[in-house]
Amino acid sequence: MNRVLLPFPLQRTLADAMAPLLDARVGRLDWHHFPDGESLVSIDESLDDVDVAVVATLRDPDELALPLRFAAATAREFGARSVGLVAPYLGYMRQDKRFNPGEAISAPLFARFLEESFDWLVTADPHLHRNPELSKLYQIPVRRLATAPLIADWIRDNLPQAILIGPDSESEQWVSAIARRAGIPYQVLTKIRRGDRDVEVSLPSIDAAWSRNPIIVDDIVSSGRTLIETIGHLKRLGLPPAVCIVIHPVFAQDAYAQLLATGVDRVVSTDSIPHPSNAISIAGLLAKASIDLFGDERS
Amino acid sequence: MNRVLLPFPLQRTLADAMAPLLDARVGRLDWHHFPDGESLVSIDESLDDVDVAVVATLRDPDELALPLRFAAATAREFGARSVGLVAPYLGYMRQDKRFNPGEAISAPLFARFLEESFDWLVTADPHLHRNPELSKLYQIPVRRLATAPLIADWIRDNLPQAILIGPDSESEQWVSAIARRAGIPYQVLTKIRRGDRDVEVSLPSIDAAWSRNPIIVDDIVSSGRTLIETIGHLKRLGLPPAVCIVIHPVFAQDAYAQLLATGVDRVVSTDSIPHPSNAISIAGLLAKASIDLFGDERS
Repeated sequence: MNRVLLPFPLQRTLADAMAPLLDARVGRLDWHHFPDGESLVSIDESLDDVDVAVVATLRDPDELALPLRFAAATAREFGARSVGLVAPYLGYMRQDKRFNPGEAISAPLFARFLEESFDWLVTADPHLHRNPELSKLYQIPVRRLATAPLIADWIRDNLPQAILIGPDSESEQWVSAIARRAGIPYQVLTKIRRGDRDVEVSLPSIDAAWSRNPIIVDDIVSSGRTLIETIGHLKRLGLPPAVCIVIHPVFAQDAYAQLLATGVDRVVSTDSIPHPSNAISIAGLLAKASIDLFGDERS
Repeated sequence: MNRVLLPFPLQRTLADAMAPLLDARVGRLDWHHFPDGESLVSIDESLDDVDVAVVATLRDPDELALPLRFAAATAREFGARSVGLVAPYLGYMRQDKRFNPGEAISAPLFARFLEESFDWLVTADPHLHRNPELSKLYQIPVRRLATAPLIADWIRDNLPQAILIGPDSESEQWVSAIARRAGIPYQVLTKIRRGDRDVEVSLPSIDAAWSRNPIIVDDIVSSGRTLIETIGHLKRLGLPPAVCIVIHPVFAQDAYAQLLATGVDRVVSTDSIPHPSNAISIAGLLAKASIDLFGDERS
């Protein structure tokens, strides 16, 4: 086979699901992070004249930076003719400008770092604020897949009687798109801030919402504060416990426990980051997005 | 001032001691490592047309890799005309060949990584096994300082009645040099291995050793196993509790507690890595080694 996936240990299940769709084999990549703060990376040796994709979700980009580089450089040393990166979750997307004097603008610096090791990049729903296009940030070929259709299909199959709640007016566009595909209604929370701690929250039609289970969708949940706040609003409006659908379950520290402690009905996430809440697999979409870039030109 | 030191938070004390010797000022470098695995680095903004040295001990090179890169790139963005690295302890010196099939050879890969960000490198006693010269590994100007004279002087000033013990025959050369400068005797342990667990250890002249406090010197103590084993040998030979002098106190996990639990008399280290055992400062030697490289050609 001309294509080899080299998954980091936590991405082996994902790579096993992607491989047949890409006509690729899954090669070995072992990573040991030692107590002295150094790593040992070992990879498949049979890479002569093949196209490689390293599969690594960038939940801990600092810790992963050197191991990623070691893996890519060693794959090239072993004869790989191209080395791409499939990063279901892409880190360092927030610091895309200097918010305070002296700050390093890490988003483009991290992009330059990855470009040195990889020929192409595939990711899922990157957190794009001020950069609407991932290709403005990255100079190598990139593909971003959208998880919204998968989430909509999951809702249609599992919660056809629910209502989708948009946390704020900015969310209306994508919330309406998911709701349409899922075949369920949606409503968007209206917030009127009366003071620092006094926020009045309302829904356009409370009566219509009461009869259905609310679903909240969020792209990245790290501290979980925004999501927990929204759950609080829905509770105070008297709605039933919400189902939370998270695209990237980052869940820093005890965020997941705090989220569960709100009495939420259920938390569901994609497997872009391995987590107990994973229920929606993006392996198929990752493979589909990779196929154009994965050694396409030369194989 | 034309020279600015940008110390990582744990190296501020070291940088404060180095600055007057280099006619440099100490600039701000803040590093926050967030629970989501990303870092925010902020540095001094007044770097236009100055020569910068980032001061960072590489005890946790994986975690530090991107922050180092962000700091160097941002210093250049702010106008620094050169950016060097003072790394009292230099990581990734052990994996300088492939010990098992498929392994990444991290020592040169890490060297290439640092060279992309830094114009020069100063370090103390790098762990050079198969590469006798640091300049064979690094393509940027490098200086390595030797801590042996400082250690010898510390022994002379603090333990003039001691005896220096070399853990094995390989150590004889440097043990004898330190002992000569310190003005104390030395002996080297002889090991005869009779089986997997049966090692006979002896000293050339036990009688001469008994009357003095033994000192053991080690370059890097990570797990502490070698050092703890040597302490065990000295105990079984009936010698008084040993003083351990460590150049680089890496002390992974509970290694320091385990070392103290042997009933060792005292553990002393250089401040190449901040640690409660620090007693010998290498700030002066670091400054001296940096002065040739620190913006010398252009200032």
